[in-house]
Amino acid sequence: MSTTTVAGDIRLKRVSPEYWQVTFDLPPLNIFGPANIPQLEEVVSLIETDERVKVVVFDSAIDGFFLIHYDFLAKPEESAKFPLGRTGLQALPDMLVRISRAPVVSIALIRGRATGVGSELALACDMRFASREKALLSQWEVGAGLVPGGGPMARLPRLIGRGRALEVLLGADDIGGELAERYGYVNRSLPDAELDTFVDALATRIASFDKQAITETKHLVNLNSLPPDAEIAPEWDAFLASLGRPAAQARLRMLFERGFHKPGDIETRLGYHVGQLRSAE
Amino acid sequence: MSTTTVAGDIRLKRVSPEYWQVTFDLPPLNIFGPANIPQLEEVVSLIETDERVKVVVFDSAIDGFFLIHYDFLAKPEESAKFPLGRTGLQALPDMLVRISRAPVVSIALIRGRATGVGSELALACDMRFASREKALLSQWEVGAGLVPGGGPMARLPRLIGRGRALEVLLGADDIGGELAERYGYVNRSLPDAELDTFVDALATRIASFDKQAITETKHLVNLNSLPPDAEIAPEWDAFLASLGRPAAQARLRMLFERGFHKPGDIETRLGYHVGQLRSAE
Amino acid sequence: MSTTTVAGDIRLKRVSPEYWQVTFDLPPLNIFGPANIPQLEEVVSLIETDERVKVVVFDSAIDGFFLIHYDFLAKPEESAKFPLGRTGLQALPDMLVRISRAPVVSIALIRGRATGVGSELALACDMRFASREKALLSQWEVGAGLVPGGGPMARLPRLIGRGRALEVLLGADDIGGELAERYGYVNRSLPDAELDTFVDALATRIASFDKQAITETKHLVNLNSLPPDAEIAPEWDAFLASLGRPAAQARLRMLFERGFHKPGDIETRLGYHVGQLRSAE
Repeated sequence: MSTTTVAGDIRLKRVSPEYWQVTFDLPPLNIFGPANIPQLEEVVSLIETDERVKVVVFDSAIDGFFLIHYDFLAKPEESAKFPLGRTGLQALPDMLVRISRAPVVSIALIRGRATGVGSELALACDMRFASREKALLSQWEVGAGLVPGGGPMARLPRLIGRGRALEVLLGADDIGGELAERYGYVNRSLPDAELDTFVDALATRIASFDKQAITETKHLVNLNSLPPDAEIAPEWDAFLASLGRPAAQARLRMLFERGFHKPGDIETRLGYHVGQLRSAE
Repeated sequence: MSTTTVAGDIRLKRVSPEYWQVTFDLPPLNIFGPANIPQLEEVVSLIETDERVKVVVFDSAIDGFFLIHYDFLAKPEESAKFPLGRTGLQALPDMLVRISRAPVVSIALIRGRATGVGSELALACDMRFASREKALLSQWEVGAGLVPGGGPMARLPRLIGRGRALEVLLGADDIGGELAERYGYVNRSLPDAELDTFVDALATRIASFDKQAITETKHLVNLNSLPPDAEIAPEWDAFLASLGRPAAQARLRMLFERGFHKPGDIETRLGYHVGQLRSAE
Repeated sequence: MSTTTVAGDIRLKRVSPEYWQVTFDLPPLNIFGPANIPQLEEVVSLIETDERVKVVVFDSAIDGFFLIHYDFLAKPEESAKFPLGRTGLQALPDMLVRISRAPVVSIALIRGRATGVGSELALACDMRFASREKALLSQWEVGAGLVPGGGPMARLPRLIGRGRALEVLLGADDIGGELAERYGYVNRSLPDAELDTFVDALATRIASFDKQAITETKHLVNLNSLPPDAEIAPEWDAFLASLGRPAAQARLRMLFERGFHKPGDIETRLGYHVGQLRSAE
């Protein structure tokens, strides 16, 4: 077993040449910011081009947080400095689209909060397995006056149907592991004590299969199950536009006053708190 | 709280300027007939054009019946007199399509039977929540020799998959709350005692969010999750054609002989009874 | 009740003129080989052209096996001798596509293993009902270095969503009745003792309905729920190409050494065994 750290805070471990593990370790909350874009870009490029890797598991080293929202404290120019990605999409949606298309099986192992970017990354993966007790998925954005930007309007209705997708997106609430499975938001939710073993066994199994058979089969599934890039593109623009509007600015300000971006109740129960903003206006 | 009755039997109540409730009160069975078309049209136009409303809940004032089938006692000329709607579709499918596209979140609160038009209205809404004990959904039409006309062949397969959609449509049986949730026919079924509180809390929550964020997010979902109007259009024509055929006329006649359109076992267990018609031929 | 055997090992029984039963009786394992292609072709042609039949149930006479994989002992020239079907597709995918489009309701009653061709036939049917205790569905092919050929990459993501479809196809493992229902791979799984009665009651019910109403309603569902033939076509070519590659040949050889194509643990637990091949290389 060899371990290689290719990036500061997003760790790539080669469990074997065929089975890799990518771990988000961005303490204290696994907030995703502009500094993480080149790190994830490096990981995605390796996944796309390595000749041996067959399966990649994305997980977290931070207790309680799989991966959460974008860093709203980052300077706008920091986020705007990245060139368009290879697909012609903005950097973050570009990487997510490339994970979906990569000739490698991607699995999200979700323990803790998968909010915003975390949910969007999970949705871009080929499969999602969650902790029944400890996973919380959410697209919280509408609750803060924002439009989600990383593809969930394109991906969620295809995965779970229009009705449940609209509930997730417009209800903007936290979805626990049991309900996430019932809705198909994740493949399955497993008892927390069994989750790692289950995902490891599945990844080990897939890593034992023939790469060409995996790649061709996934490619044929992609033909009918992936949204076209033209449907992903407007989401990021809509997110940026919403971020500049007074409604979002006022709500984000209220969230920051209450502890947003810091360990504590706001980040732990974000779904609840975005439902309380109006009454405070 | 202000209440406005804009139409005789379909009541619009403004719980708040942002949160409206539309209640079907067509005793004794919530049968939908030509008289109700202009009433629903008025409600839909208000929903489309009001600048403040963000969420509308559709429910029923009639015990045991959310909203059921079309009025087969109405004179054909009464049903045929309505001009095509704004979308170019016939009046009923036009209104359903407009509810799906409206810049407002629509929620069906289903208690009692949602048969035919009732199921079709629920399917046109953005979300559906049902009473686990008291909801019964059904597309009963094929059991009476009819083809459903209000969009379920376009909407159900997208929502619950081809296999379960064909079972609902070709089995033509009543689907209880528990199975409706398992199939994804509704978002969730809740214990009857909790349903109103749950839907009210969700509607109140959404009503507290920013209307533009809601509208833009829903619009992006619509892009990939709504059937094109050209796929809705042939259903109404197929319904009308089927209604004129001897097979449907004979079956409707048998149903009327047994109490169709009157309170009683036929309307309460319509799924069962359409399965008994052939043996009586 | 009249029984007609139109083909040696695939039996057609007319429960009534409107309700037919097609039973796979290919002992000892219900392996599907080139000899069965003209038999199934005869059945499919009858289903397509008979004026009275409304519903067909596909089931098995072999304990433990609904219908499993292709016959890998058949001479390649035996499989290659069939002309393209009416759709222009190869013989097997042609028949599956025609079952989906036929003006008749097709129901798979799954008890025992539905592996490979068996799963693909079930997916081509309009509905699937499984034994909760005794059904095992699987697309095992990737585990043997093969690409599935009979349409599952086109059909499964539409039915159960991309994430679960990729798990079924790339995990290549056996899926029991309970999980198959949870994933939507089957409509429902019923207790084994109730399965036959349930399916018979549903088929009898549908057989009592008007054929034209059934046919037109199914046709309108087909418009948005069937994959285009152009998406089915490349799967068979990919299967044949994969079959010729060393990776598949080596894995099939290992399987044969352990008892493949014979009654025993390999065929009974094929999902498990394809996961053990790599460690034996």
